[in-house]
Amino acid sequence: MAGSRIGHLFSVTTFGESHGPALGAVVEGCPAGLPLSELDLQRDLDRRRPGQSRFTTQRQEADQVRILSGLFEGMTTGTPIGLLIENTDQRSRDYRDIQELFRPGHADYTYWHKYGVRDYRGGGRSSARETAMRVAAGGIAKRLLTAWQVSVRAALIAMGEERIDRARWDWQEVDKNPFFTPDAAMVPRFTALLDQVRQEGDSVGALLEVEITGVPVGWGEPVFDRLDADLAKAMMSINAVKGVEIGDGMAAAQARGSRWVDEMVADARQANGVAFTSNRAGGILGGISSGQPIVIRLAVKPTSSIMVPRRTVDIHGQDQIIQTRGRHDPCVGIRAVPVAEAMAALVLADHGLRAKGSRL
Amino acid sequence: MAGSRIGHLFSVTTFGESHGPALGAVVEGCPAGLPLSELDLQRDLDRRRPGQSRFTTQRQEADQVRILSGLFEGMTTGTPIGLLIENTDQRSRDYRDIQELFRPGHADYTYWHKYGVRDYRGGGRSSARETAMRVAAGGIAKRLLTAWQVSVRAALIAMGEERIDRARWDWQEVDKNPFFTPDAAMVPRFTALLDQVRQEGDSVGALLEVEITGVPVGWGEPVFDRLDADLAKAMMSINAVKGVEIGDGMAAAQARGSRWVDEMVADARQANGVAFTSNRAGGILGGISSGQPIVIRLAVKPTSSIMVPRRTVDIHGQDQIIQTRGRHDPCVGIRAVPVAEAMAALVLADHGLRAKGSRL
Amino acid sequence: MAGSRIGHLFSVTTFGESHGPALGAVVEGCPAGLPLSELDLQRDLDRRRPGQSRFTTQRQEADQVRILSGLFEGMTTGTPIGLLIENTDQRSRDYRDIQELFRPGHADYTYWHKYGVRDYRGGGRSSARETAMRVAAGGIAKRLLTAWQVSVRAALIAMGEERIDRARWDWQEVDKNPFFTPDAAMVPRFTALLDQVRQEGDSVGALLEVEITGVPVGWGEPVFDRLDADLAKAMMSINAVKGVEIGDGMAAAQARGSRWVDEMVADARQANGVAFTSNRAGGILGGISSGQPIVIRLAVKPTSSIMVPRRTVDIHGQDQIIQTRGRHDPCVGIRAVPVAEAMAALVLADHGLRAKGSRL
Amino acid sequence: MAGSRIGHLFSVTTFGESHGPALGAVVEGCPAGLPLSELDLQRDLDRRRPGQSRFTTQRQEADQVRILSGLFEGMTTGTPIGLLIENTDQRSRDYRDIQELFRPGHADYTYWHKYGVRDYRGGGRSSARETAMRVAAGGIAKRLLTAWQVSVRAALIAMGEERIDRARWDWQEVDKNPFFTPDAAMVPRFTALLDQVRQEGDSVGALLEVEITGVPVGWGEPVFDRLDADLAKAMMSINAVKGVEIGDGMAAAQARGSRWVDEMVADARQANGVAFTSNRAGGILGGISSGQPIVIRLAVKPTSSIMVPRRTVDIHGQDQIIQTRGRHDPCVGIRAVPVAEAMAALVLADHGLRAKGSRL
Repeated sequence: MAGSRIGHLFSVTTFGESHGPALGAVVEGCPAGLPLSELDLQRDLDRRRPGQSRFTTQRQEADQVRILSGLFEGMTTGTPIGLLIENTDQRSRDYRDIQELFRPGHADYTYWHKYGVRDYRGGGRSSARETAMRVAAGGIAKRLLTAWQVSVRAALIAMGEERIDRARWDWQEVDKNPFFTPDAAMVPRFTALLDQVRQEGDSVGALLEVEITGVPVGWGEPVFDRLDADLAKAMMSINAVKGVEIGDGMAAAQARGSRWVDEMVADARQANGVAFTSNRAGGILGGISSGQPIVIRLAVKPTSSIMVPRRTVDIHGQDQIIQTRGRHDPCVGIRAVPVAEAMAALVLADHGLRAKGSRL
Repeated sequence: MAGSRIGHLFSVTTFGESHGPALGAVVEGCPAGLPLSELDLQRDLDRRRPGQSRFTTQRQEADQVRILSGLFEGMTTGTPIGLLIENTDQRSRDYRDIQELFRPGHADYTYWHKYGVRDYRGGGRSSARETAMRVAAGGIAKRLLTAWQVSVRAALIAMGEERIDRARWDWQEVDKNPFFTPDAAMVPRFTALLDQVRQEGDSVGALLEVEITGVPVGWGEPVFDRLDADLAKAMMSINAVKGVEIGDGMAAAQARGSRWVDEMVADARQANGVAFTSNRAGGILGGISSGQPIVIRLAVKPTSSIMVPRRTVDIHGQDQIIQTRGRHDPCVGIRAVPVAEAMAALVLADHGLRAKGSRL
Repeated sequence: MAGSRIGHLFSVTTFGESHGPALGAVVEGCPAGLPLSELDLQRDLDRRRPGQSRFTTQRQEADQVRILSGLFEGMTTGTPIGLLIENTDQRSRDYRDIQELFRPGHADYTYWHKYGVRDYRGGGRSSARETAMRVAAGGIAKRLLTAWQVSVRAALIAMGEERIDRARWDWQEVDKNPFFTPDAAMVPRFTALLDQVRQEGDSVGALLEVEITGVPVGWGEPVFDRLDADLAKAMMSINAVKGVEIGDGMAAAQARGSRWVDEMVADARQANGVAFTSNRAGGILGGISSGQPIVIRLAVKPTSSIMVPRRTVDIHGQDQIIQTRGRHDPCVGIRAVPVAEAMAALVLADHGLRAKGSRL
Repeated sequence: MAGSRIGHLFSVTTFGESHGPALGAVVEGCPAGLPLSELDLQRDLDRRRPGQSRFTTQRQEADQVRILSGLFEGMTTGTPIGLLIENTDQRSRDYRDIQELFRPGHADYTYWHKYGVRDYRGGGRSSARETAMRVAAGGIAKRLLTAWQVSVRAALIAMGEERIDRARWDWQEVDKNPFFTPDAAMVPRFTALLDQVRQEGDSVGALLEVEITGVPVGWGEPVFDRLDADLAKAMMSINAVKGVEIGDGMAAAQARGSRWVDEMVADARQANGVAFTSNRAGGILGGISSGQPIVIRLAVKPTSSIMVPRRTVDIHGQDQIIQTRGRHDPCVGIRAVPVAEAMAALVLADHGLRAKGSRL
């Protein structure tokens, strides 16, 4: 069972390599009657697109998405939606010198052993380029969620050892700076850090946070397809992600039950007449949405494509030294922000549909 | 799409409530010809079973598993394996006084809104009792993995703010103490901590680590069903888990690429002639196993079933004070150790079968 | 991917061999709030049960089903429903003499080569006994369909070369005779035929028809999961079924379009204001229910377990003569009637839930 | 769960409407290392393509397929294979006059009620044009089956009341005549029939037969995903198919067990040392391939797009008379021949991969 599909009722199947002719996807299960256009997808694709600032790879891709089916007169028809992005910048010559080398920390080595075939041009299917289709498909999911009054947004909250001050959090800031950070005061510090990292030919990790609001109580399918479990999978499936937390996350391991608690009080202003005094649980109880904001954090490792020389082996098993050249992101965590939003949106759209069958 | 199934080729579908007549499961996809008996499953069930020490709930369950199908003369036949554990201790009177209250931090509230039905007897399907079937099914997966030379084990490495010293890690210790901890020196400290927590009617969180060895290069199905993504989902689907890390995990967000690297060197003694100088990646590259040990950590929150009074509401929306009585674990993270092993084994068994189709 | 599961939103996973300890199933996806009891399932189990007349096998099985989960105070809770039937009559000595022989026309040979294991006791998993769980699970599906005003019923319409007169069709008759036939006038002729077949130690085929009424327009998921496609699969998955037709079926191959047509006329008395002048299509257009009755026919071959000697080989590849003894149905098509109803109900329950997501 | 995907390990997801910009598909699970090119797919696409003779619709479509991913240097890489056919002839003006009419016997009416959206241009997703992608994807499946020594072929064996003489069956003839019939002597009679049908503005049904050879014993996953069940579904999912038979099919209902038998005799020349004296079962026993040729027959109804006037209603519920104009096939069964081959190939490729996990 190949793994390029995610979702059950709202599902996405993607294809495409970084240096092949095109990337594409089929989105199945989007209900009929949803207004949709290519512009709805393009906005996030442009946010994810490389070459937007000096802090991302200078590779140029138009990333212009076409909707090939499933639309009639501006509305979804209930049939599968085909998406296509033609690859326009396929400079595969950049990769000639590493054709026979395995990049440490990269998928080269495992793809080679798994499939016995090596598409050495920029990572092929394992390239971060694959995430463009996640973002395109996620755009449809977001459109559906909007119709359901659910909103998904993400931000970068730390880079290397620099971390934002949550007291200064302002969602309005996120799209005003090249880091998607909600703390305007951190922009100069992130800038300085990344300039230094780039100069050293190095890379740096990042911490992202996703917030989903407007989800009613009741989404999530225990005991295995819990909402948190499916979100964890979706986040961990993004290139370079090494950890996922819901609500208080890893810190919960250190807590006492008497303090790690979200008490409930009657509150007529709330949707179900109940207010929570805090949100340590991150909006999910027993794998089911509680009506509170859903909060996810994910750690993105520094990319292994750096100019610093490292020891490696080649496909003949010989020791070698590798030094990646070409156009790479000093902090892949930045462009992971719209990708994390898209993945969260895909999971939520799926669970929104799944929840329809809970009661007679 | 109800969520009580996990896995594609090696799959498990479970059923059963904490206070219903029985728990059960169907394990599909186990290849024919595997020697198997109920004893293979009972060992881990006994490790998970409550009432083994004063540090776990005193609820008494024999947890005796029966294999109802899929075996003939001690060998699997390739047909589905039915598993059953009859519930013997169904003291539902314990729950009468909280019949109309939502326990804060518990699934009561979300199940009620999702299904419109409230099985108030000990959590019903959301009870940790459900994990017994994960452990039973995981026992079959472990048996299959053993035939493939793959081994899965887990340990508790922190409880509240007490953390083991990794330098003292000894796998032999794990089954010698009631905490499943590999650091013998921590046993008295964990004992003191838990005695205090119990006296206070409180609970405490824990950190677990799972290690899987012997996995060949090539398991995992990008781009969505990556091995790390499926492991993250499986871990997060366990009751009370709030965070999952692979390898260096959340710490990767703070790292520089020049140091966050597992270099490769030729080494004729290794399976594929390659040795890694470290294992920050946790045994998975690009979502595919690299041949190194797979390392996962998970944070288990303190249980919300405590004797400390907290504010809550009842099903009529009125403010109330709740104080859980009955038999509860002061640290559910302890009994989560065999559960985490089982979930990891289920994911690995599935991916071991899935990997068979990678090449012509 | 093992094949003991059917359905996506309303799904059933079965286990159990004819001579093992028990048969069981997990029904997932039944919405919460449906009144349900074991009696709802037992009625059809009793219709399917052997030993009801001299025209079915004399094997005695109580076929008493237990519901092990998913119910609370007589209502479904939305969690998986576990079903169990203990096997009480396991006379495996009957099969000793054919322990090493492959029965021609039977699954012995293919199971042996597929799994390398031979459970020679009465067919194991390939036994018609497996269908008991289809009927039990189908009973839940029928209960759900009843809540949706959909009804499923089936009848035997031909046996060998004897065929009913459709002009005499009376659904009331079906449960009044041991053949489930709607034509009372055929009862003496079927009786005479079967008495002769039994005396000769032979068996005979049968033709069944299933009718589903009350399905609204719009169930079925093109292009692959069409309602007719899923019904065809479900019927063909029943032991001994060799052909499936929808509406006019195979006869459509001989027709002209000008006559093979169901015209539409305005009719205010109909649900959607439209009446069809005929139902050649069998209630499905383009894979989606049209609101007309859904009509399916299926051909059941004569069982290969007969007392007439035939040539075969044994597991050592030697030529042998086989003559089945033991208790067998002279016409397995009779007991297939409740099984066909159950399979149709399972497909419809699934598609009823799937159709909920068609529109925003 | 939308229904545009088929297969589990070897799976296909399709998209595209008859008058949209393009048709496409994603083929997942094709093992790495299979030589493949667009030419492998084009041959069957050309066989299916309209306008090849005066007996098929004159609509002109180049049906040129592009492979967009999953290939590197002429070999499959194990990653998803994206397929695309741009629609070039989108004469939607042909459909203006039936914009508000439901064509009797057509999916117009059911799509309208299911989705609430009407893409009146030539059937949209319900058009036979959708089958182009089945044929393209089936071409990949055939390529894989060839590597496994399995071959799939189909033929037209009856049209209206004209039926071939099986004694004259010659597979060489199939691609020499415009009817894909194996009986050369029938060509003039089919020609005469179709000329008459066309002159009358009418249409006619057809009967097809598919034969699959080279399948080893052991493919098929009881109890629900039997090989015959999955084949029945695949065939019934083709537009206009109303009946499916395996082996002797519907005729089995009339048979006696003493004669409806495929005896087995030792035969050292056969793969498993066993020869069958006949093949009434059609190559499948208990849902698992027996090593004999697999034989399927399917009935294709006459298309409802004819020039003969019929009664219908419009979307406002008013009585109307309809008379389809435009370019239509007098016998859609002809072009269904390569489609049936493709669907059989897809099922077999999937089951070939699934069978790998049967034994340890």
